[in-house]
Amino acid sequence: MARIVQKYGGTSVGDVDRIKNVAARIKAFRAAGNEVVVVVSARSGVTNELIARAKSIHPNPPEREMDQLLSIGEQETIALTAMALEAIGVDAVSYTGAQAGIFTDKVHTKAKIKTIDAKPLEKDLSAGKVIIVAGFQGINEEGHITTLGRGGSDLTAIALAAAIKADKCEIYTDVDGVYTADPRVVQDARKLNEISYDEMLELASLGSKVMQTRSVEFASKYNVVFEVRSSFNNNPGTIVKQEVAYMEKVVVRGVAVDKDQAKVVVSNIADKPGTAAKVFRALAEANINVDMIVQNVGRDGVANLTFTVPQTEIGKVERTLAPVLKDIGGSVTLDDQIAKLSVVGVGMRTHSGVASTLFSALAGAGINLELISTSEIKISVVIAKSKADEAARVAHKAFELEKL
Amino acid sequence: MARIVQKYGGTSVGDVDRIKNVAARIKAFRAAGNEVVVVVSARSGVTNELIARAKSIHPNPPEREMDQLLSIGEQETIALTAMALEAIGVDAVSYTGAQAGIFTDKVHTKAKIKTIDAKPLEKDLSAGKVIIVAGFQGINEEGHITTLGRGGSDLTAIALAAAIKADKCEIYTDVDGVYTADPRVVQDARKLNEISYDEMLELASLGSKVMQTRSVEFASKYNVVFEVRSSFNNNPGTIVKQEVAYMEKVVVRGVAVDKDQAKVVVSNIADKPGTAAKVFRALAEANINVDMIVQNVGRDGVANLTFTVPQTEIGKVERTLAPVLKDIGGSVTLDDQIAKLSVVGVGMRTHSGVASTLFSALAGAGINLELISTSEIKISVVIAKSKADEAARVAHKAFELEKL
Repeated sequence: MARIVQKYGGTSVGDVDRIKNVAARIKAFRAAGNEVVVVVSARSGVTNELIARAKSIHPNPPEREMDQLLSIGEQETIALTAMALEAIGVDAVSYTGAQAGIFTDKVHTKAKIKTIDAKPLEKDLSAGKVIIVAGFQGINEEGHITTLGRGGSDLTAIALAAAIKADKCEIYTDVDGVYTADPRVVQDARKLNEISYDEMLELASLGSKVMQTRSVEFASKYNVVFEVRSSFNNNPGTIVKQEVAYMEKVVVRGVAVDKDQAKVVVSNIADKPGTAAKVFRALAEANINVDMIVQNVGRDGVANLTFTVPQTEIGKVERTLAPVLKDIGGSVTLDDQIAKLSVVGVGMRTHSGVASTLFSALAGAGINLELISTSEIKISVVIAKSKADEAARVAHKAFELEKL
Repeated sequence: MARIVQKYGGTSVGDVDRIKNVAARIKAFRAAGNEVVVVVSARSGVTNELIARAKSIHPNPPEREMDQLLSIGEQETIALTAMALEAIGVDAVSYTGAQAGIFTDKVHTKAKIKTIDAKPLEKDLSAGKVIIVAGFQGINEEGHITTLGRGGSDLTAIALAAAIKADKCEIYTDVDGVYTADPRVVQDARKLNEISYDEMLELASLGSKVMQTRSVEFASKYNVVFEVRSSFNNNPGTIVKQEVAYMEKVVVRGVAVDKDQAKVVVSNIADKPGTAAKVFRALAEANINVDMIVQNVGRDGVANLTFTVPQTEIGKVERTLAPVLKDIGGSVTLDDQIAKLSVVGVGMRTHSGVASTLFSALAGAGINLELISTSEIKISVVIAKSKADEAARVAHKAFELEKL
């Protein structure tokens, strides 16, 4: 008997039949004697539908009300999933984020989990019930509903797994696991059996779309081993865990492409202390995540600041920077026709030549590099969005990722 | 300046445009210097859609999960309404039932309000905010979400009006007020300017469909004067309040028809003490509302028990009575092709001849009476459903309700 936390994403619970399918899977785990806690997302499409409805009422809805609204997506799924389990004879009970004792900070639409009070949940678990918890949501100390932002349901699952000391945490999604590249783009991409938190982190943050960064960070911090696998078949997935020695033999683990970024160039600002700080303080206060920062200084004492942000934040970036530019001077150019390509692997730490292999391969294909940024275990480049798929195939081939 | 509670039903907030329209109305009340608390229902159709989805998963869904599911309908509307107010410059904040401190008993899908802790709400009111509260829902002491059953949003509004000592309570709906009969059936039906709680109670419980009984009972108990009026125009509605002397001059206030009832006949049961009690105890324990009970005893010591129940409860009645009949003998016949017609008026207390006027008029139109039941201020008869509209017109004419 094991204690398992399972998370099913929006596609896995997309309609009534899929919810029944998920219930049947859960029943099998429960029947095998396991204690099962299930985290579900909103049915796919529901969150976007709610956002569209809100925007048709208010171009920029108050974030507290947005959370109040969006949290209903998961609340629907937990109730329907519990009903589907009861319908096949499995005792089940649903929990909203608040009912599951998931307390967060006060940042609406992007809240962080502070603590989980799992006592009520433990009681129902001991009584043999399957627990269905709404992903993506929590409650703050003032009783306001909060949501955790994109990928929040994974975070709910991993945080719950840590809180109730689960033996296993399984993240069910519509893909079989983590691949060396997106199989829709790179035909001979391979599924990885194992990957380290650090590699997964870089892949997640770089747009492999399997999981969001902070869920992996949370898992790494609390050492929650989890498996990413498909809810549509019984294939083993990819296990994500602490780095082990043999992982270093592989120099590059995978290639990720992120087409949802935009490039921001702040040109002709004075090259003096504090200028860049003013820009990034304003962006941080507006809760805008900034990535890949590069600053060039010209001979005439003016600087250009270039960075990338999520495409969805472009409007917010413009609004946020307008007053700052009045102060520091300069102008802003936005470009959303870019993509970020990254190669990732813990083996890079002990191997050299990765950058030159990548740059040569891309140059050989006539692909221009607009920005470069590196870390211990990854190299990222910004290229034209129109070249992104080709670049992924070129890089995959250059590192021979198709080979076992 | 007054403190106003307003309730908008599902039709009034049926889509984005109607929500904007409601927001504009609310803004006018707020701009006039009033403190405004608004209770909203789910968008029309949403609750039925959720019920259908639940039933496609479980023929008889667990009631706790049903509440967890249905409560999202109102949660959507409160968020959208608050956004619509913010969009036109009105400071607004939404409250779920739980956030509004609406504590109920533990009976899922038909919970009763026990207490309201209006402190957080008072704080936001003092800060000048418009408060939008989800109707129809509350929370029990164990933290489970409950719903109040049909017409629950009206109850939320009236209970809140009592809790925060509102000066006015306005129930906005898709009709202009309470009429002497259904204007779609009886062409010369008139809108009433005022009506007593008792009359409204009888009309509500008898199917005038404007409001549910218990909201009116609650208003009567706490002496909450309220107005039923339309959200689609600015016509004055019907004010519902304590009976005053001049109301008695009108013998019959209105005619109501209820086509949503079914007749249950339990035949050939032993005529001995406790038999009827067993039947009704079982029905009460199953939370089935029973109306118009009649018992006939034949010469051979067997009795027939006849009563009416809501049509939706027919299946539950059959399941509930099956074990009882094994014990007491007898058989059950169900008939959903009936309607209940009632004439109501506090003036009946001091006037005689109302019954004979009604019975003669119906007999004159060839309409047969299957059951009769009377109270101090109403007379109800069960007739064939096919004759219901004609009967309403005949009764309305017999009591000259078309005249002022």
